[in-house]
Amino acid sequence: MPIKMPNGVHQSIAIGIDLGGTRIKAGVLRADGRILLRRTIPTEAGNGPDHVINRMVELARSMATDPKLGNGVLAGIGLGSPGTLSQRNGLIIAPPNLPRWSNVPIVQRIRDATGMRTLLENDGNAAAWGEFTAGAGKGAGDLVMMTFGTGIGGGIIVNGAIHRGHFENGAELGHMIIRPGGELCRCGQRGCFEAYASAAHIVRRVREAIDAGEASSCAELLQQRKTLETPDVIAAAQAGDALAARIWDEACQSIAIACINMQHVIDPQLIILAGGMAAAGEPLLTSVCASFDELNWNALTARPEIC
Amino acid sequence: MPIKMPNGVHQSIAIGIDLGGTRIKAGVLRADGRILLRRTIPTEAGNGPDHVINRMVELARSMATDPKLGNGVLAGIGLGSPGTLSQRNGLIIAPPNLPRWSNVPIVQRIRDATGMRTLLENDGNAAAWGEFTAGAGKGAGDLVMMTFGTGIGGGIIVNGAIHRGHFENGAELGHMIIRPGGELCRCGQRGCFEAYASAAHIVRRVREAIDAGEASSCAELLQQRKTLETPDVIAAAQAGDALAARIWDEACQSIAIACINMQHVIDPQLIILAGGMAAAGEPLLTSVCASFDELNWNALTARPEIC
Repeated sequence: MPIKMPNGVHQSIAIGIDLGGTRIKAGVLRADGRILLRRTIPTEAGNGPDHVINRMVELARSMATDPKLGNGVLAGIGLGSPGTLSQRNGLIIAPPNLPRWSNVPIVQRIRDATGMRTLLENDGNAAAWGEFTAGAGKGAGDLVMMTFGTGIGGGIIVNGAIHRGHFENGAELGHMIIRPGGELCRCGQRGCFEAYASAAHIVRRVREAIDAGEASSCAELLQQRKTLETPDVIAAAQAGDALAARIWDEACQSIAIACINMQHVIDPQLIILAGGMAAAGEPLLTSVCASFDELNWNALTARPEIC
Repeated sequence: MPIKMPNGVHQSIAIGIDLGGTRIKAGVLRADGRILLRRTIPTEAGNGPDHVINRMVELARSMATDPKLGNGVLAGIGLGSPGTLSQRNGLIIAPPNLPRWSNVPIVQRIRDATGMRTLLENDGNAAAWGEFTAGAGKGAGDLVMMTFGTGIGGGIIVNGAIHRGHFENGAELGHMIIRPGGELCRCGQRGCFEAYASAAHIVRRVREAIDAGEASSCAELLQQRKTLETPDVIAAAQAGDALAARIWDEACQSIAIACINMQHVIDPQLIILAGGMAAAGEPLLTSVCASFDELNWNALTARPEIC
């Protein structure tokens, strides 16, 4: 059933929906970038694609009819999803962080259910484009963006355009192999950047070490709360917990290595670290930049800014 | 003293000079890509930049006046050099494989000495451009090229243009870190791709293992000939020498990892392996492709071709 829009044409607005492995985040934006409305709901990815798509449609409907939108006319829905996907064909192919999703024609399904024009973009590409057009990367020539969530997404802007790659698999930065034979990633590879530095993998590594009998203040936290999140690991590391510090330092070093590799391959003006984990702010940036300077090619003086 | 050209204007031709850490390779090419003349001389890099530049100028002069060029008119000289360099400013900055070269205005010096129009390009970029316009990459959309010599160069063609990067340090693929804390590279970083897979580093690693007392058929070869080259290591590996096989396999695995990382970052249609070591041909390609398939993301079905 198509959504009925409020009458009157004053301002063109659009819905943005970010499909994550853990959360669906949505917003309604004006053409000038101002956010009119924000909503976040759990993905409930374990219940499979049909369930998740219904949640996205309901979310879009409830936002489209929100009185706060006033006289705005909805131009359509922009979807961000982890890869693999086909932007050209509106298809989510097989994202490691969305189990049981296989060649889902997401654009067609959301469009049919809402009656609205719908576009799909890799979440990392969408985030990079957002930073390039309205955020930290405004005015930058080339930029690389890394988004830290359940997984690690990436986006590359070269000469003012999204770099998607020949098979639309480009900028999957989380799956650069940086430690061959290392930790197993959800994608099936070993030693991926993501397996060391994504929120889900940081927590997994701490839990596995605790299960293996290692002492940590995170063990008590886990017993009390039955759950552990990256901010807990960061706080424990800063409070001197040896296990948390080791895993967190290794995550920051892995991020630094990924930044160095991006410097040598893409050589952007700017590298943006974003997503839930980047909310750690100063401790993340300080540690990453220290590793970057320690590990990096001595000869180079012109370096991308990391922010 | 400007070079005097043979009289008569029939065909526009150009001199190409590739400055390597070990050899200077030069050729005279017609506009249609046909090579009229080839010369290779040792770089003698140990004698410093002035000495090497004199050798390049002499080489250009001797080729420009060769009777084989017939009535061709020389359009100029195209220089390929390892980075770091500035294509825009005609400057060789500080290549790890050319010790004592520091901010050398190579374009101006070659131009002043020969009187010919001179252009500088990163050697990897120049090789990628050559393959894209007249070689294995003709007709390909995006391509990544890796050149294996003393070091490892790289070139990236995106949307039909050379990707140089914001600070002109892009496509330095040899210095992607793939084994953190690993072998020391000439660039100062540890664990660079180049430190495992360039001709110089493969030979260095075999020699170091022999010096440390490891048994190998390469030890006898080294005693007889006082020198060891990559083809010797490959031959020994194929003949069942354990040390040679270990180092060679690790080199091929490192190349596969670099290809996987290029797939996830750039996602090109084609990855070209070239340079002296690629002359190993079948054994190199078979081993790299086997590692690529073994280590790679299972989910992907659309993959770049490796050749």
